[in-house]
Amino acid sequence: MLKSVIVAVDAMGGDNSPGKVIAGISEYLKKNNNVFFRIFGIRSKIENELKKNSINQDNFELIHCDDVVNNNDSPLSAAKKKNTSMWQAINDVKQKKSNVVVSAGNTGALFVISKLNMSMIENISKPALAAQWPNKIDMNIVLDLGANVECDEKNFEDFAIMGSALHKALYPNDESKVALLNIGSEEIKGHETIKKAYQSMENKKNDLYDFCGYIEGNHIMDGDVNVIVTDGFTGNVALKTAEGTANFISTELKKALSQGLIAKLSSILNISNLKKFKNRLDPRMYNGAILLGLETPVIKSHGSTDYIGFANSLDVCVKTVENKLIEKIKKNINK
Amino acid sequence: MLKSVIVAVDAMGGDNSPGKVIAGISEYLKKNNNVFFRIFGIRSKIENELKKNSINQDNFELIHCDDVVNNNDSPLSAAKKKNTSMWQAINDVKQKKSNVVVSAGNTGALFVISKLNMSMIENISKPALAAQWPNKIDMNIVLDLGANVECDEKNFEDFAIMGSALHKALYPNDESKVALLNIGSEEIKGHETIKKAYQSMENKKNDLYDFCGYIEGNHIMDGDVNVIVTDGFTGNVALKTAEGTANFISTELKKALSQGLIAKLSSILNISNLKKFKNRLDPRMYNGAILLGLETPVIKSHGSTDYIGFANSLDVCVKTVENKLIEKIKKNINK
Repeated sequence: MLKSVIVAVDAMGGDNSPGKVIAGISEYLKKNNNVFFRIFGIRSKIENELKKNSINQDNFELIHCDDVVNNNDSPLSAAKKKNTSMWQAINDVKQKKSNVVVSAGNTGALFVISKLNMSMIENISKPALAAQWPNKIDMNIVLDLGANVECDEKNFEDFAIMGSALHKALYPNDESKVALLNIGSEEIKGHETIKKAYQSMENKKNDLYDFCGYIEGNHIMDGDVNVIVTDGFTGNVALKTAEGTANFISTELKKALSQGLIAKLSSILNISNLKKFKNRLDPRMYNGAILLGLETPVIKSHGSTDYIGFANSLDVCVKTVENKLIEKIKKNINK
Repeated sequence: MLKSVIVAVDAMGGDNSPGKVIAGISEYLKKNNNVFFRIFGIRSKIENELKKNSINQDNFELIHCDDVVNNNDSPLSAAKKKNTSMWQAINDVKQKKSNVVVSAGNTGALFVISKLNMSMIENISKPALAAQWPNKIDMNIVLDLGANVECDEKNFEDFAIMGSALHKALYPNDESKVALLNIGSEEIKGHETIKKAYQSMENKKNDLYDFCGYIEGNHIMDGDVNVIVTDGFTGNVALKTAEGTANFISTELKKALSQGLIAKLSSILNISNLKKFKNRLDPRMYNGAILLGLETPVIKSHGSTDYIGFANSLDVCVKTVENKLIEKIKKNINK
C-alpha cells in the first residue's frame, strides 16, 4: 500500500527504547495513517513491544540489526559499527528507501554517521542543528544549537535560509521573520562576523523570510521574530540556560505552592490551570531537533523523552517531507 | 565624623532619579549607619528629594554638577562632558576622596568614563562586568557579561580570579568554586580558547578558588559551583536569555492562574506563598553589576530598579570595600 511519507526509524536509541519508539509510532498513527515506518533494531525486542501496541501491518516493516549505538560510544567508534540500527536507518534514506530518518539515540554519533553517509546540499558549507523554542505567540526555530562551535558570516546566511525553510515547513501559514542573536540591538554591537552577516542580509532580499536585524536574549520569547540565527556555541548555551532557568523556577514554584495546608488546598483547586500552564511549556510538545544542510533531514528526538515526545518528533519528520523542506532550501540557497 | 566607607554616588542616572537614589540611600542607612555618601548631581533636584527622606547630615555631602549623562548619549559623547554627575563621581574615587562609585545611569558611558579615568590593576589586561545570579543554594557570580566580546585564555584566568575575589567579598563564609561555561562537560568540548584556559587553570592552583572544570547552561543554577566564567558575548546572551525565560514563564503563569472564578479564588488563598516565590526571584535583591579590573570597583545599579534595588547596590558597594576586593585580586593575580 502506498503511503505519502516513509520514515526510517532507529528504534534502539534513547531511554526506554524500543518501548517508547513503538508506542510513539502507534500514537502518531492515530492522527495520521498515511505514513510508513521502516523500523530498524533488534527483532525480538521490537516484536515484544509490537505486541503491546496495535500497529497495522500496512504501516511498517521491521528490519533486524544485530548491533546498537550506546550512549557512551564516541561518535567515531559508533561510526565504525556498520550493523547498528542507527547506521542502517541512516543508510536507508541514503539509498532512498525512505524520505527521512529519526533517532532518539547518541546525538554525536547520529550527526557523524549522517555526515559520513550523506552529501551536503550544494553551496551549504556547514550543517546546523535547529530546534523549536516557544515564544509568546507561537514557536521559534533557533539554530545553530551546537553543530558548529565557530561560524563565519556565510554560515549565518545559510542558517537563516535553512531555518526559515524549516519554519515554513512546520508552520506553512506563518511569515518567517529572521533575527541574529546579539548583545544589543544597535548596528555597531557584537563581533565582526555578526556585523558582516547583518550587512549582507540587510542588502540581500529573498522570498523566504523578512530580515529583522538583531535580537537580544531577553526578547527570544517575545514572538516578534520566529527564526533566530546564532553560532553553535552561543545557541547551545542559550538553549540550556533557558532550560535551567525553567527548571529552577518550577522547583521554586513547587516549594512555594506546597508550604502549609491552605497552600496545598488552594493548589488543588487551581490544579487544572497549573496543568494548562505546564502543557504550554511541556518540552515533549516541541520535541525533535533537526540537523539541516544534508540532502535529507535528520531528526533527533530527545533521548529522555517518552512516547508522546517521540510521536511529536515523528510529526516533525512527516512535515519536513510533506512540505518540501529540502527543495525550499535548494531553491533559495543560490539566490 | 569618620565613617568606614565613603561611596561616590551619581544621583542623576536611571529611571526616577534622583528620587530613587536618595530614597535608596535613606533605606540603606537604616541597616548600616557607618557609611558616608558623596552625592553628585543637580542641587535643586536632590535637595527636593532630601526633604522627603530623613538622612542625617553626618552621612552625606551634596556636590553640585551642572550637567547629566543622558540614556541616549553615546559613550564617547558622554565622555566629553566633564561636569556631569557621572564624570564627577568617578573623578572623586580617582582622587581618593571616596572608596567606590555607583551609578544607575548609561552603562556604556559609565564604563568608558571609568576606563578613561582609572588605571587597570597591574597584570589584568581586560576589565570584566560581573553580576550576581541566583542558584538553588545561594548566589553565583557570573562574568563577563558584556565588557569584552572576544576573550583569550589569559582573560578567562583573570576573570576567575576577579570573580572569586568578588564572591569572597560578598559571601566571606563561602568557598569559591569556579567553572568555565561550555557546551559540554568533557575536556574535548568547546573552542580552542576555552580548552587552553581549562588546561592552564587545571594546572595552576591558588588559594582563592577551587577549579571545577566546565559547566553547561542548564546547570548554572544548580549551586554546585558559584563563580561562572565566560566571554562577554556568551555571558550577555545567557543572562538575558535567563531573564527572558523568567518573564515568559511568569506571564504564562499569571494567565493560567487567572482563568476562571475558582482559579482566582484559589490564587488569592495562595497569594502569600506566591509572594515568597516572587521574593526569591526578585531581581532587586541582587541588583548591582560590578566592573572589575580597575583600581577601584565601579558599581552599576540597574537603570529601571527602584529605591530598594538601589539600596541593595549600595550594599554591594560597601561589601567590596570592607572586604578588600581589590587587595584580594592584586594578591592573587601575580601568583
